[in-house]
Amino acid sequence: MRQRFKPWAKEKLMENPEIVSIQPESLKGKWHSFFGNDNPIHIEVGTGKGQFINGMGKQNPSVNYLGMELYDSIIITALDRILENGLSNVKLIRADATHLLDYFDHGEIDRVYLNFSDPWPKLKHAKRRLTHESFLQKYETILKNPGEIHFKTDNQGLFEYSLHSMSKYGMIFQDVSLDLHKSDISHNVMTEYEEKFSEKGFRIYRMEALFRS
Amino acid sequence: MRQRFKPWAKEKLMENPEIVSIQPESLKGKWHSFFGNDNPIHIEVGTGKGQFINGMGKQNPSVNYLGMELYDSIIITALDRILENGLSNVKLIRADATHLLDYFDHGEIDRVYLNFSDPWPKLKHAKRRLTHESFLQKYETILKNPGEIHFKTDNQGLFEYSLHSMSKYGMIFQDVSLDLHKSDISHNVMTEYEEKFSEKGFRIYRMEALFRS
Repeated sequence: MRQRFKPWAKEKLMENPEIVSIQPESLKGKWHSFFGNDNPIHIEVGTGKGQFINGMGKQNPSVNYLGMELYDSIIITALDRILENGLSNVKLIRADATHLLDYFDHGEIDRVYLNFSDPWPKLKHAKRRLTHESFLQKYETILKNPGEIHFKTDNQGLFEYSLHSMSKYGMIFQDVSLDLHKSDISHNVMTEYEEKFSEKGFRIYRMEALFRS
Repeated sequence: MRQRFKPWAKEKLMENPEIVSIQPESLKGKWHSFFGNDNPIHIEVGTGKGQFINGMGKQNPSVNYLGMELYDSIIITALDRILENGLSNVKLIRADATHLLDYFDHGEIDRVYLNFSDPWPKLKHAKRRLTHESFLQKYETILKNPGEIHFKTDNQGLFEYSLHSMSKYGMIFQDVSLDLHKSDISHNVMTEYEEKFSEKGFRIYRMEALFRS
């Protein structure tokens, strides 16, 4: 996602510590108290401007949504949306997915969403793809057993790669859709990117992948 | 595939016992001697008019191809093609995939091809799909370890179902292509059906699925 330099962004994030955590290590094992309830916690890794988690948060008030994003200049828009919507079940973490194990305890999370993740198309960058084995190991650790990943992308190559990588890891696919917007879907909450690309007629691929218990 | 009644078909099949086996039970454990060599044996379940195995047989003379088809009136065309091409490494079996275990010994087969199999779209017919668990068990038994299934279809629903069914069985997907004819493929031998449908612009889905050893 394109970033613009927003020098005031970090300050604004720090002014809203009840919504955005910029030191997630300190909340490891304590995320339920951050939300103030024992509802399940779903994280979106790479939440961008937060349209998805805001939509999900409205649709499912009894689920806690935690959007993870690396860049101040992007996550600030997600914060604005949460403030606008006044949703208490949607929060943010300004952090890097590489360090997930530093942020969450074993089994602390109930579901992982990956939406339109960077495809890193070059083979030499395969390790950076969010469905690479090294990330799957992390998700499996922080997820309750049996954990679920819900994955959407318009990128054919990333979807093909993920079918390989996740099946090799022993995961089970269910509710696979190779053309989401022509499928019989209900309750699909779109990301900003998804709205733009499905309007242009591009296919959206989706699946749920379950870790083998 | 549409069948026409061809009363002379059975007779012609019986006249070519060195190419077509209509009593495959009697060859269980003896398929290498049917081919007269120890080369690997690849079967195509549902070979139709045999364009695929004829093409494969020409391309790979050191592999034995065995096309399985249920109907006399269809397999007869496959026989004609083999006779025309004079290929000694392509043979046929007039038989029903449900009884695979009666025809082949454990580990007697090196690869299974499933091409444009009947999608059986109704849920109540899921058991008839050639990627249903009950068939996967049979393929696993007759295949050398680790066995491979190479699968192509234009049917989105069947491909989605197969990703579920095969991953649930623990299989590993590799070389997945969600748009085969726009992929970087070489050596792809087309079936008749594939030629027709890819010309019309329909996507062809392909994958290789490996049993976990």
